[in-house]
Amino acid sequence: MKTFIVSSIQEIRSKKPLIHHITNYVTVNDCANITLAIGGSPIMADDVNEVVEITKLSHALVINIGTLNERTIPAMILAGKTANKQNIPVILDPVGAGVSNLRNETVRTLLKEVRFTVIKGNRSEIRFLAGVVSNNKGIDASAEDLKKELETQQVAKELAIKYQCIISITGAVDIVTDGTQIISVENGCEKMSHITGTGCMSASLIAVFCACYPDQPLYSTTTALLAMGIVGEEAAKKTIEQGTGQLRTAIIDRISLLDEKTVIEKGRFYEK
Amino acid sequence: MKTFIVSSIQEIRSKKPLIHHITNYVTVNDCANITLAIGGSPIMADDVNEVVEITKLSHALVINIGTLNERTIPAMILAGKTANKQNIPVILDPVGAGVSNLRNETVRTLLKEVRFTVIKGNRSEIRFLAGVVSNNKGIDASAEDLKKELETQQVAKELAIKYQCIISITGAVDIVTDGTQIISVENGCEKMSHITGTGCMSASLIAVFCACYPDQPLYSTTTALLAMGIVGEEAAKKTIEQGTGQLRTAIIDRISLLDEKTVIEKGRFYEK
Amino acid sequence: MKTFIVSSIQEIRSKKPLIHHITNYVTVNDCANITLAIGGSPIMADDVNEVVEITKLSHALVINIGTLNERTIPAMILAGKTANKQNIPVILDPVGAGVSNLRNETVRTLLKEVRFTVIKGNRSEIRFLAGVVSNNKGIDASAEDLKKELETQQVAKELAIKYQCIISITGAVDIVTDGTQIISVENGCEKMSHITGTGCMSASLIAVFCACYPDQPLYSTTTALLAMGIVGEEAAKKTIEQGTGQLRTAIIDRISLLDEKTVIEKGRFYEK
Repeated sequence: MKTFIVSSIQEIRSKKPLIHHITNYVTVNDCANITLAIGGSPIMADDVNEVVEITKLSHALVINIGTLNERTIPAMILAGKTANKQNIPVILDPVGAGVSNLRNETVRTLLKEVRFTVIKGNRSEIRFLAGVVSNNKGIDASAEDLKKELETQQVAKELAIKYQCIISITGAVDIVTDGTQIISVENGCEKMSHITGTGCMSASLIAVFCACYPDQPLYSTTTALLAMGIVGEEAAKKTIEQGTGQLRTAIIDRISLLDEKTVIEKGRFYEK
Repeated sequence: MKTFIVSSIQEIRSKKPLIHHITNYVTVNDCANITLAIGGSPIMADDVNEVVEITKLSHALVINIGTLNERTIPAMILAGKTANKQNIPVILDPVGAGVSNLRNETVRTLLKEVRFTVIKGNRSEIRFLAGVVSNNKGIDASAEDLKKELETQQVAKELAIKYQCIISITGAVDIVTDGTQIISVENGCEKMSHITGTGCMSASLIAVFCACYPDQPLYSTTTALLAMGIVGEEAAKKTIEQGTGQLRTAIIDRISLLDEKTVIEKGRFYEK
Repeated sequence: MKTFIVSSIQEIRSKKPLIHHITNYVTVNDCANITLAIGGSPIMADDVNEVVEITKLSHALVINIGTLNERTIPAMILAGKTANKQNIPVILDPVGAGVSNLRNETVRTLLKEVRFTVIKGNRSEIRFLAGVVSNNKGIDASAEDLKKELETQQVAKELAIKYQCIISITGAVDIVTDGTQIISVENGCEKMSHITGTGCMSASLIAVFCACYPDQPLYSTTTALLAMGIVGEEAAKKTIEQGTGQLRTAIIDRISLLDEKTVIEKGRFYEK
């Protein structure tokens, strides 16, 4: 893992991978700016008539269903299939899976039609994917879910095997698994849930790392979550006295200055 | 009123009410972040096929027509009706009412089909609702309107009675009325109109307070406007030398740190 | 040119021109805030059923195809035609022209149906408009294009004559031409490309200046680019140690404080 991290950010900054996002209109600006901050190049396009061409130009695709609608769902599916044909990584952020039939059906269709490289969600969303009954209250994982740590890890592993992809569950402790290995990431802090967008930005970072290292999605995902967790902790310190408004800006600030040395020094991850 | 304020923000922070927004794509991120900053939880969803389920999960609904379109208008109506059935508060922000037939017709339909708890607008928008001829120049209230203070108060009262809801008119002095009582809020400052989103964020705050105190919409609305006005004044002071760019961030910062003591100490409101 | 600049910003701040934007959902908030910061008033509306009325109320129109879709394309065309009838300036920002058939066809239709006052793009986009083969990699101009400075200037002049408009190419050095005169703007810095939105915000500024000086689009466009370049340089200095997250805020901060004296003192422009 440390060997992977060593030159990864420099690599990204020299390659500038293009990341196609079909994402929600709430945090889309944050996703674009964090992609640029880590060294990638974002492109947002969601019309079904152009996504094939846009995906073909790109080095990774993010599908985030946060504000999905009838117009964009077919674009998500088509872009996902195109990414598979092009053999570029596809990241799914199933925002709010479990809260409506539209989201549930869309996630089911996406999982049937598209091979994902990484699926990243909170506990409620991932448990929905696994068919475990979930009390998903909107976007945030419920407190009850937090207790079910071990069960959740098992669920993640099984899902990873079933869909042959990386499953990543974000929360107080993030976990990342390929079905065999499990890595836990302890960076990050509760304050990060006081703003919108940290989850969506994590998905963008995962996409950037995967775009540069398509054969190492487990380490790519872990490094992206380490990066977000480390800068989030630092950014949150500053906001204790000053409030949460500037947290978003501070996170993007610190991602733009982040180097591998900091990730290795401050990263708290445990491989099992 | 002071008795109401005393523990209201703490109450919000312990209850974390979920606020469904069908809103514009210009300030949607600000709405999400201010909802989190005061202690609520935002969810944005505008597809007609999922709004019923989303509204059913929520504790209040905000309908903001800032960038309404053919796809989202039916979702607004359906979500509003669902909120009525569920007996949760519905806030209407009729952005730009008076500037186009589409907005006018949409507002008319919404008023016919949905019972609103609070309607919040600037003078031009509320005067349009009342059928008073208005020279609405986009989003901001025109200078001429400002002179018509007394007439406007009368208009607000009549509207509140007609629609059996709280009418709130934001401006140099905000007014809030249930048709009988009128409360004026003198906090806030002109600088706040130099950025986009303060009006939309106010509607989100109103929704959060109403979600916790559905039976006290007059005081909920007033407290929300006091909160926004107080933090806006403080935030604006800092920006006199530094510019208006950081005003948005500073407002969200201060909302996240706001307590009831500050609202009572700094709030300038007058009940009539 | 200096004579033009002398009182232009004060003029804007007294006139408060209303700028109708049909733009992308990624940077729309930045466009609204920069319009307010320079002294204009933004209105965003993209439903085909209301754009005629909105454009009629406005003093300039910005069409930005960044996240174009089937629903908004007809609105762009209709708004453009309305602006032509009303004789108000229309600015085209052909974001990503060259990357998909949908964008290319939309740009072709727009150029056929609408007379533009200013077309502003990066080298790749403008070269696409001119039919020069382009390797457009998403949103940013490719390094190769930068070498073709002279060829690009010729392309810009020819396009300006063909479409009887101002052509502006943004990059390391911006150029602005009416087909006869060429003005180069050397302000701005590489750091500005590390965030999203500087191009879109430039288009908003151009629209504001053109709205106040519809008969002087060459000088309006140049002054807008000078303004953006000057504040971008200053904002970027501060972010060298602090990261790029706050660059966006700092740009809007400085635009809100900008005066003509600063533009004249710090502006580096060369008329040929």
